[in-house]
Amino acid sequence: MNVYSFGNGKADGNSGMKDVLGGKGANLAEMTSLGLPVPPGFTISTEMCLKFFENNETLSEELKSEVLKALGQVEEIMNKKFGSEDNPLLVSVRSGARVSMPGMMDTILNLGLNDQTVEALAKLSGNERFAWDSYRRFLQMYSNVVMGMNISLLEIKLEDLKDEKGYKSDTEITVDELKQLVSSYKEQIYDSCGQMFPMDPMEQLWGAINAVFKSWNVPRALAYREMNNIAHDWGTAVNVQSMVFGNMGDTSATGVAFTRNPSTGEKKFYGEYLINAQGEDVVAGIRTPQSLVNTSNDGLSMQETLPDVFGQLENIYQTLESHYKDMQDLEFTVEQGRLWMLQTRTGKRTAKAALKIAMDMVDEGVITKEEALLRLDPKSLDQLLHPTLDPDAEKNQIAVGLPASPGGVCGVVVFSSEEAVAKKEKGQDVILVRVETSPEDIEGMNAALGILTSRGGMTSHAAVVARGMGKSCVAGCGAMEVDYQKQEFRVGGFVVKAGEEITIDGSCGEVYLGRVKTIEPKLDDNFKRVMDIADSVRRLKVRTNADTAHDAKIARDFGAEGIGLCRTEHMFFESSRIDVMREMIFAENFAERSDALEKLLPMQSSDFYELFQAMKGLPVTIRLLDPPLHEFLPHTEKELEELSGRLDLPVSRLRSKIKPLQEFNPMLGHRGCRLAISYPEIYKMQARAIATATSDLVLQGFSLTPEIMIPLVGMDKELEILKKLVRSEVEAVQKEKAVEFDFLVGTMIELPRAALTADEIASHADFFSFGTNDLTQTCLGISRDDSGRFLSTYVSDGILESDPFASIDVKGVGGLVKTAVRLGREQKSELKIGICGEHGGDPKSIEFFESAGLDYVSCSPFRVPIARLAAAQSSLKNQKLKG
Amino acid sequence: MNVYSFGNGKADGNSGMKDVLGGKGANLAEMTSLGLPVPPGFTISTEMCLKFFENNETLSEELKSEVLKALGQVEEIMNKKFGSEDNPLLVSVRSGARVSMPGMMDTILNLGLNDQTVEALAKLSGNERFAWDSYRRFLQMYSNVVMGMNISLLEIKLEDLKDEKGYKSDTEITVDELKQLVSSYKEQIYDSCGQMFPMDPMEQLWGAINAVFKSWNVPRALAYREMNNIAHDWGTAVNVQSMVFGNMGDTSATGVAFTRNPSTGEKKFYGEYLINAQGEDVVAGIRTPQSLVNTSNDGLSMQETLPDVFGQLENIYQTLESHYKDMQDLEFTVEQGRLWMLQTRTGKRTAKAALKIAMDMVDEGVITKEEALLRLDPKSLDQLLHPTLDPDAEKNQIAVGLPASPGGVCGVVVFSSEEAVAKKEKGQDVILVRVETSPEDIEGMNAALGILTSRGGMTSHAAVVARGMGKSCVAGCGAMEVDYQKQEFRVGGFVVKAGEEITIDGSCGEVYLGRVKTIEPKLDDNFKRVMDIADSVRRLKVRTNADTAHDAKIARDFGAEGIGLCRTEHMFFESSRIDVMREMIFAENFAERSDALEKLLPMQSSDFYELFQAMKGLPVTIRLLDPPLHEFLPHTEKELEELSGRLDLPVSRLRSKIKPLQEFNPMLGHRGCRLAISYPEIYKMQARAIATATSDLVLQGFSLTPEIMIPLVGMDKELEILKKLVRSEVEAVQKEKAVEFDFLVGTMIELPRAALTADEIASHADFFSFGTNDLTQTCLGISRDDSGRFLSTYVSDGILESDPFASIDVKGVGGLVKTAVRLGREQKSELKIGICGEHGGDPKSIEFFESAGLDYVSCSPFRVPIARLAAAQSSLKNQKLKG
Repeated sequence: MNVYSFGNGKADGNSGMKDVLGGKGANLAEMTSLGLPVPPGFTISTEMCLKFFENNETLSEELKSEVLKALGQVEEIMNKKFGSEDNPLLVSVRSGARVSMPGMMDTILNLGLNDQTVEALAKLSGNERFAWDSYRRFLQMYSNVVMGMNISLLEIKLEDLKDEKGYKSDTEITVDELKQLVSSYKEQIYDSCGQMFPMDPMEQLWGAINAVFKSWNVPRALAYREMNNIAHDWGTAVNVQSMVFGNMGDTSATGVAFTRNPSTGEKKFYGEYLINAQGEDVVAGIRTPQSLVNTSNDGLSMQETLPDVFGQLENIYQTLESHYKDMQDLEFTVEQGRLWMLQTRTGKRTAKAALKIAMDMVDEGVITKEEALLRLDPKSLDQLLHPTLDPDAEKNQIAVGLPASPGGVCGVVVFSSEEAVAKKEKGQDVILVRVETSPEDIEGMNAALGILTSRGGMTSHAAVVARGMGKSCVAGCGAMEVDYQKQEFRVGGFVVKAGEEITIDGSCGEVYLGRVKTIEPKLDDNFKRVMDIADSVRRLKVRTNADTAHDAKIARDFGAEGIGLCRTEHMFFESSRIDVMREMIFAENFAERSDALEKLLPMQSSDFYELFQAMKGLPVTIRLLDPPLHEFLPHTEKELEELSGRLDLPVSRLRSKIKPLQEFNPMLGHRGCRLAISYPEIYKMQARAIATATSDLVLQGFSLTPEIMIPLVGMDKELEILKKLVRSEVEAVQKEKAVEFDFLVGTMIELPRAALTADEIASHADFFSFGTNDLTQTCLGISRDDSGRFLSTYVSDGILESDPFASIDVKGVGGLVKTAVRLGREQKSELKIGICGEHGGDPKSIEFFESAGLDYVSCSPFRVPIARLAAAQSSLKNQKLKG
Repeated sequence: MNVYSFGNGKADGNSGMKDVLGGKGANLAEMTSLGLPVPPGFTISTEMCLKFFENNETLSEELKSEVLKALGQVEEIMNKKFGSEDNPLLVSVRSGARVSMPGMMDTILNLGLNDQTVEALAKLSGNERFAWDSYRRFLQMYSNVVMGMNISLLEIKLEDLKDEKGYKSDTEITVDELKQLVSSYKEQIYDSCGQMFPMDPMEQLWGAINAVFKSWNVPRALAYREMNNIAHDWGTAVNVQSMVFGNMGDTSATGVAFTRNPSTGEKKFYGEYLINAQGEDVVAGIRTPQSLVNTSNDGLSMQETLPDVFGQLENIYQTLESHYKDMQDLEFTVEQGRLWMLQTRTGKRTAKAALKIAMDMVDEGVITKEEALLRLDPKSLDQLLHPTLDPDAEKNQIAVGLPASPGGVCGVVVFSSEEAVAKKEKGQDVILVRVETSPEDIEGMNAALGILTSRGGMTSHAAVVARGMGKSCVAGCGAMEVDYQKQEFRVGGFVVKAGEEITIDGSCGEVYLGRVKTIEPKLDDNFKRVMDIADSVRRLKVRTNADTAHDAKIARDFGAEGIGLCRTEHMFFESSRIDVMREMIFAENFAERSDALEKLLPMQSSDFYELFQAMKGLPVTIRLLDPPLHEFLPHTEKELEELSGRLDLPVSRLRSKIKPLQEFNPMLGHRGCRLAISYPEIYKMQARAIATATSDLVLQGFSLTPEIMIPLVGMDKELEILKKLVRSEVEAVQKEKAVEFDFLVGTMIELPRAALTADEIASHADFFSFGTNDLTQTCLGISRDDSGRFLSTYVSDGILESDPFASIDVKGVGGLVKTAVRLGREQKSELKIGICGEHGGDPKSIEFFESAGLDYVSCSPFRVPIARLAAAQSSLKNQKLKG
């Protein structure tokens, strides 16, 4: 069989036959078999496309006779005749490969129209204008797609006419003028193509089928297949389907429907329609659609105007839901009292609705709990945790950056952290706008509702910290020019001054002028139910990245099972501490450095005490100092002079210390454990602080096993030396305080060399934690802070599948992760392995980490629910894979 | 057998028994068996050390009786008696493990001395002072090492005495005072240790043997073994050997000899000696040693004073050379007319001598050509290619930096490139001193004889460029403070001003004040012979990294077989071009950028023309633009203003273009092929220039296959896109010029991701070339420019085996290389693979590249001979491994 008919409740194909029928053809067959009133038609198989090319781009006689037979069946069902001058059948012709593919021929509508049938259409529809405009469009489309004519030659005639008459829109053109246009179109087609436009509908049909097949091998389609690794020998199917019209009088209509409410998830049939209209009319918004369901007894609902059709629709939506087991989005047309289903697909919905529908369907026994989980988009949970912009509000978008941290917020623009804090204290909502943020902006970021930066990517400082805080953030908005001196930013033609209001949507990266209405988040029972199911299913533990007791508390409320990353350096940026840190850096010798560290010790110790307390015995991984020392230094001359006063040290001495600390590539510089090899006393102090806090709590009866993590290890000897140092310091405190507790010393795996030598490193490590941010930077050789200028192009051009800082690069970075897991466990079979990079909160990455056999992921507090759901889905998928 | 005797031409052991006898014991046995008059003695096996520990740190009776028997044999040979008051035998006791190991007990000399035997020694030597001083030293050493006494308690007595008497040196102390010291030493030992110093020589011996065994497990030795992966169960041997004295009158003597001349390689016995002296006297330089061989008939040579002994020595040196098949360095003592050989080892020699000796020995039929090759140190060839400092010249060293590029040169100090060029034009030799160099310093570096920088490592800009030019360079001299404003540098207490003379030795990194005499290099026939043998043996091809026809010519003269890396960016830094490059960077749009590129095209094209011509058809690999654009921009406000004038563009526009180009981590930034994805027209221009130059030459009858290399590829799609672009541009030129030639498009493998996805990348690549500099930076996460502050500590502390930028990190970076070779060749079995990083000229790295199966290495011109020899050695070693 080469031609597959569908119509009147029967179809030769089904949804499993995408290889033969293409995606569209298979779906049309499936809908028909379900008993739905689908406009009848037929699909020419993909194999015929390959035969077409083998056959010197001609259609075989065998195929032609099969098409004629199938066409006859359509005529029969529709009770119309192709080419008839009284009651003509018109058809659409569409391409349809296994996957949808840009570049190929899309659709020719109203095929079958000619000088005679157009008159019949006018009469039947009672709308002469519609008939002639359809004919004009058909001429234009067909001559272009099938006859290869330059479309602008016809468009120019339309424009000329409108100019001449002073018309602003196509709708002003009269029927007579349309008829004249049709006539001049035909002349132009003859002049350009050297042949008449075919009046014979069969000739039109063969031409259209030919054109669909040919479009399989046009350069754009070829290029697209190359880019997306689609085989050239798949071929495309051709779908020929009867046209139906909703504008054939008062018993005709067109509409859309949802089987449940897509905003709330409520189980109620829901939709809109227009009497005597075409699909475009609903979209164009010229007329106001009416409700399908009778809610106000105004006599306008379909339930009232076309009760029979409405009854059929109600049956259909129930059939569809129980067949597809999900909420459906339907399109239909009523032609002179007869209902035709044009499309059904899984309906889009809000996160809130998604949770409700999933849980309701579990309760209704339609799907299992596992199916319900797999159906949810973990990322969409963001909508429930952060404020969102009112979708109905008017918006004046002025820029778009990276969606760095979700949430829609509005506030007045400030350009400095101090200003943010000051305005916040006065009760104002503020948006902190910076070229980029640095650790010294932490207090300002905390005071702001949202952060907007012109530089930096998805893992820039602003993005990471904002996600950690649960603040909205749009980062790397490159078109925006921030002018601190003039206290304004410019973008496009707009100038926004400090104190003016803007709104940012960190979920999509958009920036709007003025205030946009927002909707506050609310967690309901369905959320809790979904999370409980997820927890019962997942294998991966979910921890959080948190540096303060406050963040730790939020994360615990979201279900975090421990802290996977506490960055100790953030503790040093607090205004009361940074000067002590600087004292340490400016020390001339070991003794001075020790003095400063002595002052930091009680501060660090109390930090850890609070953090441990907040986590109530759950595991806490503390990363020892990581950033290069110059990050803690003042940036301007003025700050330097002030510091000189505070520390009572001459500016010249400070300057002479600062200079040699500067680095060309700080990311690859003197940081992480390298600092501790140079200045062991820093890690010693931190180990002592951790041990002191632990001892105090253990003496109070607390149970606690701190996990101490050494960053940036590349050589096993680094870890060997520093583990010894940390252990002996902790043991010294245990002895002093006469207390015993277990503790672990492990390492980050965040350099390619660490991954490649993970066996050697594992022999000194109690645990591994992948730092996939730095691992991505080094594996790909891309600085996340500098990648803004090219990374988006890389993603849009398909050089990279996605931003590797947002979703893990499975082939490259993932390869290193797998190697490290294998080597590490070969050395120590029970090695605990987690991941604490930004990827720990990304569902696609979590799926990879599940398959790589990690023990836990750690992410920012607001991503914990996302990670729990994603981990559960990954477990389910992995079980399925394993059989 | 547990105790192995040697002496009188017979030995129980031999050189193959290092596991049992330790290194030292095995060598003493070997020398004895050769018939050499080695002072007799015996070696206690390493197994006894382990037994000692098993046995609660006691010596078994069985062992003791074996020792007594062996001691008796020594007495017999020496005709002396241990403990005799007339003719006492004295012995040394030394440790000796399989490998030499710091931390363990080294040597106790003169064991057997006591209040009686010291008198006998005084009488026999006729030197009472010598005898009592030996006794004093023996007391000090033994009480410390064996009895565990704090050595400072005895040292203080010596110092007190000297203070009291006003003596400045030990030699002023009289015999009587020495006797008093010995007496007070004994009292102090009794007070501190609670026991008398043992007067019984046998008790002394058992104590010393005990101490050697115990020293195997002292903490320092344990730590050393941990660090160097030496097994703890090897144990150490103990060597007990008869003492001999060269200061027992006029028929006694001590001396050193070489079997050939170590400076020239001449085949002539050569050495010095002192009558009636100890070894220390030769070293101390108080008396002037005399020649062994009679050259001036002055009656002072050993040939004249002790003709019999000299005759023995002549026989011995011939025996040793034919046994060890290499030039030997001998130490001997004559005790009362009897010759004793203390040591023989392979003699150190200059590079020139090494080549001559190796070739002479081939001619003499002593060794094969292959053995000769394997014996040479490739790195030492540097001495032959660059001037060296006269080893006899006086030097005033003021600093030491990294030995970045070999050669000893002197000149006046200048602090800027302009000054270097100006002074050079006046005929002065100059040393360019900079904090670091940048591409704009190229002309100054070219004008200077040597370069000295205070920052930057072995692959810093200064180091790489200097090596390329064959200039001497000392880099990263951190102690040096360069003050451009005062036009001086300060180091230690010294201040060196512009215009003053200094000397630098780039082979060892040392910096001297003033002018030091240098020796010009000269290549002789032996060099050519060695190179010819090397070429006949090696599998790896050797190419060069060269950007100019001038460098290419030098490299060809050194035997380069092609260019493995031509860095096109260096071509843009020439003063006549940099402004055009900047014009391109400051372009506002595609059209402006194209205009600037249009101007660069003929310049590039003529560069390539000259380069191809210089290489006469040998393969030339051209790397397209690699550095980030900001490297080409002016650095100071003044330069910016001048540029603004020259380009006729407002400063504000320049500034607004410069700012967004700044990067946090330029190494990981917008560079390499990423630039070409953003601005394809740059690589297009370069491809056109290459194609134009090739076409012109091909039309003249030249045969040429240019190799075009895309840098910094991380994703296969990058290469796919850019290869297509390059190919179509080259093909366009071929069509325009109606000429045909083959060309290759390949890629650098210099990112971990590229190595890990080499199979995908290989499907688009005609060749691979490893960029191991960048691969090292990314794999280890270490910026070569910023590593100075910690990398030297890493090497000295054993965290890294060696500087990974100088010698490839085999486990990490090497792992990536092997992976890439495997994946690349799996995809394309005939894929040509080379390496063009700095490691291409490092012998240890070359050995790795040979084993990894690369096709060629590429290095700077002056390293080509080194690479040829190293490649040959690697081939030989690899064949041995396989065969």
